[in-house]
Amino acid sequence: MALADLERVERNAAGIETALGILKQRFGARMQTGQSIREQHAHTTTYIPNQAPDAVIFPESTEEVAEIVRICAEHRVPVIPFGVGTSLEGHTNAPGGGISLDMTNMNRVVRVDAEDLDCVVEPGITREALNEHLRDTGLFFPIDPGANATIGGMASTRASGTNAVRYGTMRDNVMALTVVMADGTVVTTAKRAKKSSAGYDLTRLFIGAEGTLGVITQLTLKLHGIPQAISGGVCPFPSVETACEAVIATIQMGIPVARIELVNQLMMRGMINYSKLDYPESPSLFLEFHGSDAGVKEQAEMFGEIADEYGGGPFLWTTNAEERAKLWKARHDAYWASMSLRPGAQGISTDVCVPISRLAECITATEIDIAENGLVGPIVGHVGDGNFHVALLLDAGDPKEVEAAEAFIARLNMRAIAMDGTCTGEHGIGQGKMAFLERELGSAVDVMRSIKKALDPDNIMNPGKIMPSRRH
Amino acid sequence: MALADLERVERNAAGIETALGILKQRFGARMQTGQSIREQHAHTTTYIPNQAPDAVIFPESTEEVAEIVRICAEHRVPVIPFGVGTSLEGHTNAPGGGISLDMTNMNRVVRVDAEDLDCVVEPGITREALNEHLRDTGLFFPIDPGANATIGGMASTRASGTNAVRYGTMRDNVMALTVVMADGTVVTTAKRAKKSSAGYDLTRLFIGAEGTLGVITQLTLKLHGIPQAISGGVCPFPSVETACEAVIATIQMGIPVARIELVNQLMMRGMINYSKLDYPESPSLFLEFHGSDAGVKEQAEMFGEIADEYGGGPFLWTTNAEERAKLWKARHDAYWASMSLRPGAQGISTDVCVPISRLAECITATEIDIAENGLVGPIVGHVGDGNFHVALLLDAGDPKEVEAAEAFIARLNMRAIAMDGTCTGEHGIGQGKMAFLERELGSAVDVMRSIKKALDPDNIMNPGKIMPSRRH
Repeated sequence: MALADLERVERNAAGIETALGILKQRFGARMQTGQSIREQHAHTTTYIPNQAPDAVIFPESTEEVAEIVRICAEHRVPVIPFGVGTSLEGHTNAPGGGISLDMTNMNRVVRVDAEDLDCVVEPGITREALNEHLRDTGLFFPIDPGANATIGGMASTRASGTNAVRYGTMRDNVMALTVVMADGTVVTTAKRAKKSSAGYDLTRLFIGAEGTLGVITQLTLKLHGIPQAISGGVCPFPSVETACEAVIATIQMGIPVARIELVNQLMMRGMINYSKLDYPESPSLFLEFHGSDAGVKEQAEMFGEIADEYGGGPFLWTTNAEERAKLWKARHDAYWASMSLRPGAQGISTDVCVPISRLAECITATEIDIAENGLVGPIVGHVGDGNFHVALLLDAGDPKEVEAAEAFIARLNMRAIAMDGTCTGEHGIGQGKMAFLERELGSAVDVMRSIKKALDPDNIMNPGKIMPSRRH
Repeated sequence: MALADLERVERNAAGIETALGILKQRFGARMQTGQSIREQHAHTTTYIPNQAPDAVIFPESTEEVAEIVRICAEHRVPVIPFGVGTSLEGHTNAPGGGISLDMTNMNRVVRVDAEDLDCVVEPGITREALNEHLRDTGLFFPIDPGANATIGGMASTRASGTNAVRYGTMRDNVMALTVVMADGTVVTTAKRAKKSSAGYDLTRLFIGAEGTLGVITQLTLKLHGIPQAISGGVCPFPSVETACEAVIATIQMGIPVARIELVNQLMMRGMINYSKLDYPESPSLFLEFHGSDAGVKEQAEMFGEIADEYGGGPFLWTTNAEERAKLWKARHDAYWASMSLRPGAQGISTDVCVPISRLAECITATEIDIAENGLVGPIVGHVGDGNFHVALLLDAGDPKEVEAAEAFIARLNMRAIAMDGTCTGEHGIGQGKMAFLERELGSAVDVMRSIKKALDPDNIMNPGKIMPSRRH
């Protein structure tokens, strides 16, 4: 699967050389060509090979991005936008070389409009920096994919994470974009109205396009009021099935849960050890409720009753900020906790998403698959959305184990697709999941190809990602 | 503006004749060519002239739609999808003739999945018929644009309405689409997972595309649990400004209001007379809260306090279903109530949407504009989203008044755009607002043109809508 099928992108060596010369003159020290910095700007987070760009440039404005893209367009040189490199499927690799656009200098908050609950930011700001900036306004940006990613990168992969069950994904929380197109023209996709029926939804087209249609240089984001009160806690269940049934009941009753995260038994073991938690080693749900004082109490109590009905509990919950912080730190440290299950292993995180009615079946089949193939892979999931991750822990030096892992990931993707789900709920396609996109959406991928071809005829915007050029 | 600028679409008389012959043989009595039925399937809801198609066909399956489109593609004949004809900006006109695809026979509920809170429907089902079908499931589809439109039509105009402030728009509540493309191929845009990062967001591309990129033949919709309790009521304010300030405070506090509708003084007069309401003739907010018994009481009380702070009130609210029904019937009958302000007049409904911080300013300037130009135009608005409508009441036989109305609508659109808003929050562009789309989004319209050209190179899908072929 993935490794064998990486898209080949032809290298336009002459064009690259010419463009590099022009860009060096223009950007001086803001263009870097050292091997180490180039490799840092390629893919670093899984076993997909590192394919370094020819240079890294640090633009500081939309105009500079447009200028770089125009030069690259003239010489047919790939342009690969880069945030902080937390993407997981090879999104920032440069299979045909070219320019990595490091957006981290474009990290300003342009404006905050508290009355309208929105703000305008540059793409290089991280979500934590944004929320730090917003601290005194009583507002926050809720999307939390775990990693402290940049907002531009999060938009480009249609990121989501733990809060999505209540606040939606990047799709729902970006109102407008400024984008530099493949020919260097600059477009703004929407005004600042909360809704619009004015023409094609270009905002949504660029969200999740992984930089293959243009470079995002500014974003208008929806903000939310920091809730008056928060309650949260952990609830053990006898099985993944009963936990999932409780999730379905919770969603069906319309309890506006802010976070509802499943941790399977193996993952719970890792977290108990790593974060010194005093919980039973059972499949568990981590929950959080946002609202008024009375509301979060009511929500927690209603969930407690549901858990009890499905044989779970006791649901220990609190509104104490310190206790909640410890809990969510443990959840966010799941990566490290999983590593503690197999010290020295390489972690590979993969994600799928299925209708929640199929979630228990999908996770259970996946647990059996992992066990039968001698792999180590704890599971955590944003189960309110039917989305879960397997964190495979590999001995990367053992080709047999890598092969088993690849075969497992292929089966996992096909299992999710067969259950009317998707091969990626939030990580994106990048290079790693191109074969599965086609399996999932068939002829719709041809429509994507037509759009790509229309907006980037020379295939310079992050080439070799999302759309396989040939049928798998 | 609008009238003078209607897009000209060249009529391919020979192709139409040939296609009609083939289609008549294939569809027999399911193809109609009588003048009256053809005119009913063109634009009927404003003063934009009626441009009838050459024939109306009633397909019964995706395969039949694909067959019709393939025949039309071969002979370069326009295809105009039609629901129940409630669109307001000339969306169903046939400026170059062609085939109106009446989708009302494709009105089945294919499946309802209560565990996943979703359902699959055909595009010709109306929202009321869908909710009637769902009645025993405890679920409902919340989008309510006022008219009993078809779900396919609502998707195609990115409709919203009174509930959008809480439940979002069609953009947020359609999970996947089956679409017949301009060459007759059938694509499915997404699986049934609640979220996905798999490739370009084609679902959102077709929502709001007004049939210009393909024909929607099936939709997967998100459903919501019918709230345990509902409270609602009416609150008078001394002015539009104070009412808008109360709206902003309500949203900022995160009160999850389900509906928050502004009725200006003139509209209130019409509603009091028409629906025999016992309320003061002041600008008023109509509100509704959804939640638990305790929750809706708390929300209503919190809003009452906010209203009081801004000089409004008393906020009379109730959880009694009968009283609420009377209230919302009055709000839904606003069209008839406005007609009662000028019996015999032609009603023209236009909509804009601005950031809510600018809403009071925009409505007030619009009220002055209406008064200064001797027009009659009560205002109602989905103010939680910054969206409002002017219902102009015209003597359509008076060219001077029609001209004044057109000039007013142009100013209204430009005023909204100047306030960082949009020329349409929910009605769509159709033929009526093409000039303003370009004013609003500039070079982004070129991106839309490229997509249109790529997916419909012969311009047969609802031609002459959304994108002006020339700069205005």
